[in-house]
Amino acid sequence: MHRTDLSTMPCPVARSLERVGEWWNILILRDAFYGVTRFDDFRQRTGISPAMLTRRLKALVEAGLLERRRYSAHPPRDEYVLTERGRDFRPVILALFAWGNRHFAPEGKSLMLIDTVTGIEVDPVVTDRASGKLIEGERYRVVVGPAATDRTQARFAAPTRSTSIVPSSSK
Amino acid sequence: MHRTDLSTMPCPVARSLERVGEWWNILILRDAFYGVTRFDDFRQRTGISPAMLTRRLKALVEAGLLERRRYSAHPPRDEYVLTERGRDFRPVILALFAWGNRHFAPEGKSLMLIDTVTGIEVDPVVTDRASGKLIEGERYRVVVGPAATDRTQARFAAPTRSTSIVPSSSK
Repeated sequence: MHRTDLSTMPCPVARSLERVGEWWNILILRDAFYGVTRFDDFRQRTGISPAMLTRRLKALVEAGLLERRRYSAHPPRDEYVLTERGRDFRPVILALFAWGNRHFAPEGKSLMLIDTVTGIEVDPVVTDRASGKLIEGERYRVVVGPAATDRTQARFAAPTRSTSIVPSSSK
Repeated sequence: MHRTDLSTMPCPVARSLERVGEWWNILILRDAFYGVTRFDDFRQRTGISPAMLTRRLKALVEAGLLERRRYSAHPPRDEYVLTERGRDFRPVILALFAWGNRHFAPEGKSLMLIDTVTGIEVDPVVTDRASGKLIEGERYRVVVGPAATDRTQARFAAPTRSTSIVPSSSK
Protein backbone atom coordinates (compact mmCIF):
# COMPACT_ATOMS: atom_id res chain seq x y z
CA MET A 1 0.00 0.00 0.00
CA HIS A 2 2.78 2.41 0.93
CA ARG A 3 4.54 1.64 -2.33
CA THR A 4 1.53 2.68 -4.33
CA ASP A 5 1.25 5.90 -2.38
CA LEU A 6 4.86 6.79 -2.97
CA SER A 7 4.83 6.10 -6.68
CA THR A 8 1.97 8.52 -7.19
CA MET A 9 3.88 11.32 -5.51
CA PRO A 10 5.58 13.77 -7.88
CA CYS A 11 8.57 14.19 -5.58
CA PRO A 12 11.70 12.46 -6.89
CA VAL A 13 12.76 11.61 -3.34
CA ALA A 14 9.53 9.66 -2.80
CA ARG A 15 9.90 7.86 -6.10
CA SER A 16 13.46 6.90 -5.30
CA LEU A 17 12.57 5.57 -1.90
CA GLU A 18 9.97 3.33 -3.40
CA ARG A 19 12.80 1.49 -5.14
CA VAL A 20 15.37 1.34 -2.38
CA GLY A 21 13.76 2.53 0.83
CA GLU A 22 14.17 -0.59 2.93
CA TRP A 23 17.55 -0.71 4.38
CA TRP A 24 18.41 -4.21 3.35
CA ASN A 25 18.20 -2.98 -0.21
CA ILE A 26 20.67 -0.21 0.46
CA LEU A 27 23.08 -2.53 2.25
CA ILE A 28 22.93 -4.88 -0.72
CA LEU A 29 23.63 -2.00 -3.09
CA ARG A 30 26.49 -0.88 -0.86
CA ASP A 31 28.06 -4.31 -1.17
CA ALA A 32 27.46 -4.34 -4.91
CA PHE A 33 29.57 -1.17 -5.05
CA TYR A 34 32.24 -3.02 -3.09
CA GLY A 35 32.30 -5.54 -5.93
CA VAL A 36 30.11 -8.26 -4.43
CA THR A 37 28.08 -10.15 -7.05
CA ARG A 38 27.25 -13.55 -5.59
CA PHE A 39 24.44 -14.69 -3.34
CA ASP A 40 26.65 -16.28 -0.70
CA ASP A 41 28.91 -13.23 -0.52
CA PHE A 42 25.97 -10.86 -0.08
CA ARG A 43 24.60 -13.15 2.60
CA GLN A 44 27.85 -13.44 4.49
CA ARG A 45 28.60 -9.70 4.44
CA THR A 46 25.18 -8.44 5.41
CA GLY A 47 24.07 -11.26 7.71
CA ILE A 48 20.71 -11.20 5.95
CA SER A 49 18.65 -14.41 5.95
CA PRO A 50 18.63 -16.39 2.68
CA ALA A 51 14.87 -15.98 2.22
CA MET A 52 15.05 -12.23 2.75
CA LEU A 53 18.09 -11.90 0.51
CA THR A 54 16.31 -13.77 -2.28
CA ARG A 55 13.35 -11.38 -2.02
CA ARG A 56 15.53 -8.28 -1.89
CA LEU A 57 17.67 -9.30 -4.88
CA LYS A 58 14.53 -10.04 -6.86
CA ALA A 59 13.08 -6.62 -5.99
CA LEU A 60 16.30 -4.85 -6.96
CA VAL A 61 16.37 -6.69 -10.30
CA GLU A 62 12.72 -5.78 -10.92
CA ALA A 63 13.42 -2.14 -10.06
CA GLY A 64 16.23 -2.17 -12.63
CA LEU A 65 19.10 -1.59 -10.21
CA LEU A 66 20.70 -5.01 -10.49
CA GLU A 67 20.98 -7.34 -13.44
CA ARG A 68 20.96 -11.09 -13.02
CA ARG A 69 23.58 -12.98 -15.02
CA ARG A 70 24.28 -16.67 -15.30
CA TYR A 71 27.92 -17.36 -14.58
CA SER A 72 27.81 -21.16 -14.31
CA ALA A 73 25.67 -23.59 -16.27
CA HIS A 74 26.52 -26.72 -14.24
CA PRO A 75 25.51 -26.19 -11.54
CA PRO A 76 23.29 -23.25 -12.52
CA ARG A 77 24.54 -20.15 -10.70
CA ASP A 78 23.67 -16.50 -11.12
CA GLU A 79 25.41 -13.33 -10.12
CA TYR A 80 24.02 -9.85 -9.64
CA VAL A 81 25.70 -6.80 -11.14
CA LEU A 82 24.78 -3.15 -10.98
CA THR A 83 22.97 -1.65 -13.94
CA GLU A 84 23.55 1.94 -15.02
CA ARG A 85 20.62 2.94 -12.82
CA GLY A 86 22.18 1.03 -9.94
CA ARG A 87 25.60 2.63 -10.47
CA ASP A 88 23.95 6.04 -10.47
CA PHE A 89 22.86 5.34 -6.90
CA ARG A 90 26.44 5.69 -5.69
CA PRO A 91 26.10 9.35 -4.60
CA VAL A 92 23.40 8.29 -2.13
CA ILE A 93 25.68 5.64 -0.64
CA LEU A 94 28.54 8.14 -0.45
CA ALA A 95 26.34 10.70 1.30
CA LEU A 96 25.17 8.06 3.80
CA PHE A 97 28.77 6.98 4.34
CA ALA A 98 29.90 10.53 5.14
CA TRP A 99 26.94 11.22 7.41
CA GLY A 100 27.45 7.97 9.32
CA ASN A 101 31.12 8.64 9.92
CA ARG A 102 30.42 12.14 11.08
CA HIS A 103 27.63 11.34 13.50
CA PHE A 104 27.69 7.67 14.40
CA ALA A 105 31.31 6.72 14.93
CA PRO A 106 32.00 8.00 18.46
CA GLU A 107 34.85 5.53 18.90
CA GLY A 108 36.56 6.73 15.71
CA LYS A 109 36.25 5.61 12.12
CA SER A 110 36.23 1.92 11.31
CA LEU A 111 36.06 2.61 7.59
CA MET A 112 37.24 5.60 5.61
CA LEU A 113 37.04 6.66 2.02
CA ILE A 114 40.41 7.64 0.59
CA ASP A 115 41.77 9.10 -2.60
CA THR A 116 44.29 6.47 -3.69
CA VAL A 117 46.29 9.01 -5.67
CA THR A 118 46.99 11.29 -2.71
CA GLY A 119 46.41 8.78 0.09
CA ILE A 120 44.29 11.41 1.81
CA GLU A 121 40.86 10.83 3.28
CA VAL A 122 38.00 12.11 1.16
CA ASP A 123 35.18 14.26 2.54
CA PRO A 124 32.19 13.68 0.23
CA VAL A 125 30.01 16.74 -0.27
CA VAL A 126 27.18 17.51 -2.66
CA THR A 127 27.92 20.23 -5.20
CA ASP A 128 26.39 21.60 -8.35
CA ARG A 129 28.04 19.88 -11.30
CA ALA A 130 28.21 23.05 -13.39
CA SER A 131 29.43 25.58 -10.83
CA GLY A 132 31.18 23.28 -8.36
CA LYS A 133 29.49 25.15 -5.52
CA LEU A 134 28.26 23.41 -2.37
CA ILE A 135 24.48 23.04 -2.49
CA GLU A 136 23.51 24.67 0.78
CA GLY A 137 21.78 27.74 2.08
CA GLU A 138 18.88 29.77 0.79
CA ARG A 139 20.39 30.01 -2.67
CA TYR A 140 19.01 26.64 -3.78
CA ARG A 141 15.32 25.97 -4.02
CA VAL A 142 12.93 23.32 -5.22
CA VAL A 143 10.52 24.62 -7.85
CA VAL A 144 7.90 22.99 -10.03
CA GLY A 145 9.04 21.49 -13.31
CA PRO A 146 7.36 21.09 -16.71
CA ALA A 147 5.58 17.85 -15.75
CA ALA A 148 4.03 19.20 -12.54
CA THR A 149 0.32 18.59 -12.13
CA ASP A 150 -2.03 21.39 -11.09
CA ARG A 151 -1.98 20.02 -7.58
CA THR A 152 1.81 20.08 -7.38
CA GLN A 153 1.89 23.56 -8.89
CA ALA A 154 -0.57 24.83 -6.30
CA ARG A 155 1.50 23.37 -3.51
CA PHE A 156 4.77 24.84 -4.70
CA ALA A 157 3.53 28.00 -6.38
CA ALA A 158 3.98 30.53 -3.60
CA PRO A 159 7.61 31.34 -2.81
CA THR A 160 7.19 30.59 0.88
CA ARG A 161 9.81 29.12 3.12
CA SER A 162 8.24 25.75 2.45
CA THR A 163 9.89 25.61 -0.97
CA SER A 164 13.39 26.05 0.38
CA ILE A 165 15.69 23.06 0.49
CA VAL A 166 17.30 24.45 3.60
CA PRO A 167 15.63 24.53 7.03
CA SER A 168 14.49 27.95 8.10
CA SER A 169 16.21 27.49 11.45
CA SER A 170 19.64 27.57 9.79
CA LYS A 171 19.24 31.06 8.41
CA MET B 1 15.99 -7.05 15.80
CA HIS B 2 17.40 -5.70 12.57
CA ARG B 3 18.22 -2.43 14.27
CA THR B 4 20.47 -4.19 16.74
CA ASP B 5 22.25 -6.00 13.95
CA LEU B 6 22.93 -2.80 12.06
CA SER B 7 24.26 -0.86 15.03
CA THR B 8 26.95 -3.47 15.62
CA MET B 9 28.23 -3.17 12.07
CA PRO B 10 31.31 -0.97 11.64
CA CYS B 11 30.13 0.35 8.29
CA PRO B 12 28.94 3.96 8.45
CA VAL B 13 26.26 3.25 5.85
CA ALA B 14 24.74 0.59 8.09
CA ARG B 15 24.85 2.85 11.12
CA SER B 16 23.19 5.65 9.21
CA LEU B 17 20.41 3.43 7.97
CA GLU B 18 19.62 2.36 11.48
CA ARG B 19 18.58 5.96 12.13
CA VAL B 20 16.71 6.76 8.97
CA GLY B 21 16.29 3.59 6.96
CA GLU B 22 12.52 3.47 6.82
CA TRP B 23 11.20 5.64 4.12
CA TRP B 24 8.66 7.48 6.13
CA ASN B 25 11.56 8.85 8.12
CA ILE B 26 13.27 10.13 5.01
CA LEU B 27 10.07 11.70 3.68
CA ILE B 28 9.62 13.46 7.00
CA LEU B 29 13.19 14.74 6.87
CA ARG B 30 12.64 15.86 3.28
CA ASP B 31 9.67 17.95 4.41
CA ALA B 32 11.65 19.29 7.36
CA PHE B 33 14.15 20.60 4.79
CA TYR B 34 11.24 22.22 2.98
CA GLY B 35 10.55 24.12 6.20
CA VAL B 36 7.74 21.99 7.60
CA THR B 37 7.73 21.89 11.40
CA ARG B 38 4.19 21.06 12.51
CA PHE B 39 2.42 17.76 12.92
CA ASP B 40 -0.56 18.59 10.73
CA ASP B 41 1.67 19.89 7.94
CA PHE B 42 3.81 16.76 7.96
CA ARG B 43 0.67 14.67 7.91
CA GLN B 44 -0.93 16.54 5.05
CA ARG B 45 2.17 16.55 2.86
CA THR B 46 3.17 12.93 3.32
CA GLY B 47 -0.26 11.35 3.67
CA ILE B 48 1.10 9.35 6.60
CA SER B 49 -1.37 8.16 9.24
CA PRO B 50 -1.39 10.09 12.53
CA ALA B 51 -0.33 7.06 14.56
CA MET B 52 2.57 6.31 12.22
CA LEU B 53 3.62 9.95 12.10
CA THR B 54 3.67 10.14 15.89
CA ARG B 55 5.93 7.08 16.03
CA ARG B 56 8.25 8.35 13.29
CA LEU B 57 8.64 11.83 14.80
CA LYS B 58 9.41 10.26 18.17
CA ALA B 59 12.05 8.02 16.60
CA LEU B 60 13.65 10.92 14.76
CA VAL B 61 13.79 12.95 17.98
CA GLU B 62 15.34 10.00 19.82
CA ALA B 63 17.91 9.55 17.05
CA GLY B 64 18.86 13.20 17.43
CA LEU B 65 17.74 14.34 13.96
CA LEU B 66 14.77 16.45 15.05
CA GLU B 67 14.27 18.56 18.13
CA ARG B 68 10.86 18.99 19.71
CA ARG B 69 9.96 22.54 20.71
CA ARG B 70 6.87 23.90 22.39
CA TYR B 71 5.46 26.76 20.37
CA SER B 72 2.10 27.18 22.11
CA ALA B 73 1.28 26.76 25.77
CA HIS B 74 -2.53 27.03 25.48
CA PRO B 75 -3.33 24.75 23.85
CA PRO B 76 -0.06 22.83 24.20
CA ARG B 77 1.53 22.45 20.75
CA ASP B 78 4.96 21.29 19.68
CA GLU B 79 6.91 21.71 16.52
CA TYR B 80 9.80 19.70 15.16
CA VAL B 81 12.95 21.33 13.84
CA LEU B 82 16.09 19.82 12.38
CA THR B 83 19.11 19.50 14.64
CA GLU B 84 22.65 19.90 13.31
CA ARG B 85 22.73 16.14 12.76
CA GLY B 86 19.45 16.37 10.90
CA ARG B 87 20.63 19.26 8.74
CA ASP B 88 23.75 17.28 7.88
CA PHE B 89 21.47 14.69 6.27
CA ARG B 90 20.68 17.08 3.42
CA PRO B 91 23.29 15.61 1.02
CA VAL B 92 21.46 12.28 1.18
CA ILE B 93 18.16 13.94 0.29
CA LEU B 94 19.83 15.84 -2.55
CA ALA B 95 21.38 12.65 -3.91
CA LEU B 96 18.00 10.87 -3.75
CA PHE B 97 16.36 13.85 -5.44
CA ALA B 98 18.83 13.80 -8.34
CA TRP B 99 18.63 10.03 -8.76
CA GLY B 100 14.82 10.07 -8.73
CA ASN B 101 14.64 12.79 -11.34
CA ARG B 102 17.11 11.00 -13.56
CA HIS B 103 15.54 7.57 -13.43
CA PHE B 104 11.95 7.82 -12.28
CA ALA B 105 10.41 10.80 -14.02
CA PRO B 106 9.59 9.40 -17.48
CA GLU B 107 6.90 12.05 -18.00
CA GLY B 108 9.35 14.86 -17.24
CA LYS B 109 10.29 16.59 -14.02
CA SER B 110 7.58 17.62 -11.60
CA LEU B 111 10.07 19.20 -9.26
CA MET B 112 13.48 20.67 -9.96
CA LEU B 113 16.25 22.09 -7.86
CA ILE B 114 17.41 25.50 -9.05
CA ASP B 115 20.10 28.00 -8.24
CA THR B 116 18.10 31.13 -7.46
CA VAL B 117 21.03 33.37 -8.35
CA THR B 118 21.37 32.10 -11.91
CA GLY B 119 17.89 30.64 -12.32
CA ILE B 120 19.47 27.53 -13.78
CA GLU B 121 18.66 23.98 -12.77
CA VAL B 122 21.20 22.38 -10.47
CA ASP B 123 22.67 18.93 -11.06
CA PRO B 124 23.73 17.66 -7.63
CA VAL B 125 26.86 15.50 -7.69
CA VAL B 126 29.11 14.16 -4.95
CA THR B 127 32.62 15.56 -4.90
CA ASP B 128 35.60 15.59 -2.59
CA ARG B 129 35.43 18.76 -0.52
CA ALA B 130 39.18 19.40 -0.71
CA SER B 131 39.86 18.72 -4.38
CA GLY B 132 36.44 19.38 -5.86
CA LYS B 133 36.78 16.20 -7.94
CA LEU B 134 33.86 13.90 -8.64
CA ILE B 135 34.08 10.81 -6.44
CA GLU B 136 33.92 8.06 -9.03
CA GLY B 137 36.09 5.41 -10.58
CA GLU B 138 38.84 3.24 -9.18
CA ARG B 139 40.63 6.21 -7.66
CA TYR B 140 38.49 6.19 -4.51
CA ARG B 141 38.50 3.27 -2.12
CA VAL B 142 37.15 2.31 1.25
CA VAL B 143 39.90 1.34 3.69
CA VAL B 144 39.98 0.49 7.38
CA GLY B 145 40.22 3.36 9.82
CA PRO B 146 41.83 3.68 13.27
CA ALA B 147 38.80 2.27 15.11
CA ALA B 148 38.52 -0.88 13.00
CA THR B 149 38.25 -4.14 14.92
CA ASP B 150 40.42 -7.13 14.01
CA ARG B 151 37.45 -8.60 12.21
CA THR B 152 36.92 -5.50 10.09
CA GLN B 153 40.64 -5.28 9.38
CA ALA B 154 40.74 -8.87 8.20
CA ARG B 155 37.80 -8.28 5.91
CA PHE B 156 39.22 -5.16 4.33
CA ALA B 157 42.94 -5.92 4.59
CA ALA B 158 43.62 -7.34 1.14
CA PRO B 159 43.43 -4.79 -1.66
CA THR B 160 40.95 -6.84 -3.63
CA ARG B 161 38.21 -5.50 -5.81
CA SER B 162 35.90 -5.90 -2.84
CA THR B 163 37.32 -2.76 -1.24
CA SER B 164 36.54 -0.55 -4.21
CA ILE B 165 33.66 1.87 -4.00
CA VAL B 166 33.04 1.43 -7.69
CA PRO B 167 31.58 -1.71 -9.25
CA SER B 168 34.08 -3.85 -11.11
CA SER B 169 31.79 -3.94 -14.13
CA SER B 170 32.29 -0.21 -14.71
CA LYS B 171 36.06 -0.50 -15.24
